[in-house]
Amino acid sequence: MKLSTPLSAKLGLASPIIQAPMAGGPSSQELVAACSAAGVLGSFGFAYTQPDEMKKQSAWVRAKTDRPFGINLFTSTQPSQIDAGSQRGALEAVAGYYRELGLPVPEPVNAPYAPDLDAQLEAVEAIAPRVFTVHLSDLPEKNLRKLKAKNILVGGSATCVAEAQRLESLGFDFVIAQGGEAGGHRGSYLRDPYESLTGTLALVRLVVRAVRLPVVAAGGIMDGAGIAAVMALGAQAAQLGTAFIPCPESGAPQFHKDQLLAAREDDTRITEKFTGKPARGLANRFIREMNAANAPQLAFPAQGVLTGKLRQASSKVGNPDFFNLWAGQAAPLSRASPAAELVAKLTDEAVESIQKLKGMLHES
Amino acid sequence: MKLSTPLSAKLGLASPIIQAPMAGGPSSQELVAACSAAGVLGSFGFAYTQPDEMKKQSAWVRAKTDRPFGINLFTSTQPSQIDAGSQRGALEAVAGYYRELGLPVPEPVNAPYAPDLDAQLEAVEAIAPRVFTVHLSDLPEKNLRKLKAKNILVGGSATCVAEAQRLESLGFDFVIAQGGEAGGHRGSYLRDPYESLTGTLALVRLVVRAVRLPVVAAGGIMDGAGIAAVMALGAQAAQLGTAFIPCPESGAPQFHKDQLLAAREDDTRITEKFTGKPARGLANRFIREMNAANAPQLAFPAQGVLTGKLRQASSKVGNPDFFNLWAGQAAPLSRASPAAELVAKLTDEAVESIQKLKGMLHES
Repeated sequence: MKLSTPLSAKLGLASPIIQAPMAGGPSSQELVAACSAAGVLGSFGFAYTQPDEMKKQSAWVRAKTDRPFGINLFTSTQPSQIDAGSQRGALEAVAGYYRELGLPVPEPVNAPYAPDLDAQLEAVEAIAPRVFTVHLSDLPEKNLRKLKAKNILVGGSATCVAEAQRLESLGFDFVIAQGGEAGGHRGSYLRDPYESLTGTLALVRLVVRAVRLPVVAAGGIMDGAGIAAVMALGAQAAQLGTAFIPCPESGAPQFHKDQLLAAREDDTRITEKFTGKPARGLANRFIREMNAANAPQLAFPAQGVLTGKLRQASSKVGNPDFFNLWAGQAAPLSRASPAAELVAKLTDEAVESIQKLKGMLHES
Repeated sequence: MKLSTPLSAKLGLASPIIQAPMAGGPSSQELVAACSAAGVLGSFGFAYTQPDEMKKQSAWVRAKTDRPFGINLFTSTQPSQIDAGSQRGALEAVAGYYRELGLPVPEPVNAPYAPDLDAQLEAVEAIAPRVFTVHLSDLPEKNLRKLKAKNILVGGSATCVAEAQRLESLGFDFVIAQGGEAGGHRGSYLRDPYESLTGTLALVRLVVRAVRLPVVAAGGIMDGAGIAAVMALGAQAAQLGTAFIPCPESGAPQFHKDQLLAAREDDTRITEKFTGKPARGLANRFIREMNAANAPQLAFPAQGVLTGKLRQASSKVGNPDFFNLWAGQAAPLSRASPAAELVAKLTDEAVESIQKLKGMLHES
């Protein structure tokens, strides 16, 4: 048996599943290709990726499979140069960790703090993936029009009803309802992110009832039962991030995969200390200490540049203490399977879950 | 068509739905009777109710319907007398609100701050409802044994895997997985409640996978699609609180009902300022100001006694500013229906949702 919704049919997917874009490593070209080849939507998280590299990795995927894939970008604005004086507190807050790993004490970081968004958007136009999604903000109408003219289906994240309605009014093709369970960055941009942590079950239903656009559900979905559940809420696809991190094809460090597989309880926390914007990850020393101290930080994404070498070094020596172990609240349901196997299991489980539900219906 | 699970069959319910116990007014005898008569499990929230009144209201329900109902108690311990000096800060923090409503400035509050739990448990034994559930803690094994000997099915709330496993190890009959979306008091007692706010979608699935007990899902469920969703996750019943507050049979003040019906976005917040323990309600002036000031407060439930007259007066004059407007995150899906009509709609919608899901299955 297979599962199909209007949106999954439109995208030519064998199953209404999206491998979530995960910038900074996990959504490697290998993972995207494996997911797309397996019949779901593989997705690049290209927030921190330069246009040439975006094109290179997209071409690599296309050489592996002719199935559709997606690209995601962060569309929030970045600060201009932050002067060294203003940076002092944030530098001091992380200097001890740098020393602990035997690294030189961090220097003030210089703009630009992320690749140029206009150049990235041009690269998306040139690549013309089947799907393009935005996170952390919306998109100017002129960019939206240009992308749609290339037959790219454009979606955006919403963490509240107002954000979903805004995407609809701008002409987006679909909305990703990102529930409070979700790992990684909160997509909030119209409300205080800490007051926009509605759980996936509530948010998906609220958004489905508030807009006419197809809704993709994200946050806390780790198995086929979760996929069936969000479909019951009216979602036309489920977007899973954490579930794909332990795949051998994912670019996450091995200790990130191991920590997910070892999780027994929801031990995630939201922190701004890695990048400057709130994101959910497994609680480690960095999150605990920096959150508890309410340590000074730079604006997003400059804080991410400031902590970049620390995170890289942490990764290199296999030390999970100072790395952003992004994870959703259902992380304990993680399993280690090659992407194609995981996709097959997810589909089978979702089908089984729906068939079980059918068995609970009785003639009155 | 009807819906049935092993737990709902065991309880003799026409639909796997539990009207959540809501102490302090909403779960009136009229609401409990109407829900039970309509084929779901009506439930009393008797946390603040004296044994004689518990018996009187239970008898009232039994005179209306022979269908099963449930009783819930808070089983956390209460503080002994708090001396007047220690109370000063908490009294001062609310004195201005008392004055604003033309009330005398509050006096120090005296123990006991809640009815005697042992006496309440004896009343439950005497009443012998079909279901008894606990909130805010577990239950000593000797009480559990006595209640089970009366053929009472005993359940407890869990906001994390550890709490669910504890209930299982103690011999509880079922567990209520209370997701972060839920309105009213957080049932957390083994973890910091603020680190135990896992969303319903993630929590229900985690708990279903971690224990063998039947799981009831609570938090953010407002319609039949939500019920079908939690059943897809493996829950054997859905517990809905906020959904029943606007019913004419509920004992909530009219402005509480009106505010739920007018909600357009998740504007709930968690506060300890009404009772001393974290609980979710619609953000109003009291929550905003007291949370922002991180005002001093008494331990639960003494703070509830301290704010009691303020809340009563607020209710009496129809002023929502100082009343505990408990609500879950899906409050905007509220509707005003008599309980029996709401139950019929919930069942029909859940059936419809499952039939729609069936329609998404295709031969591969």
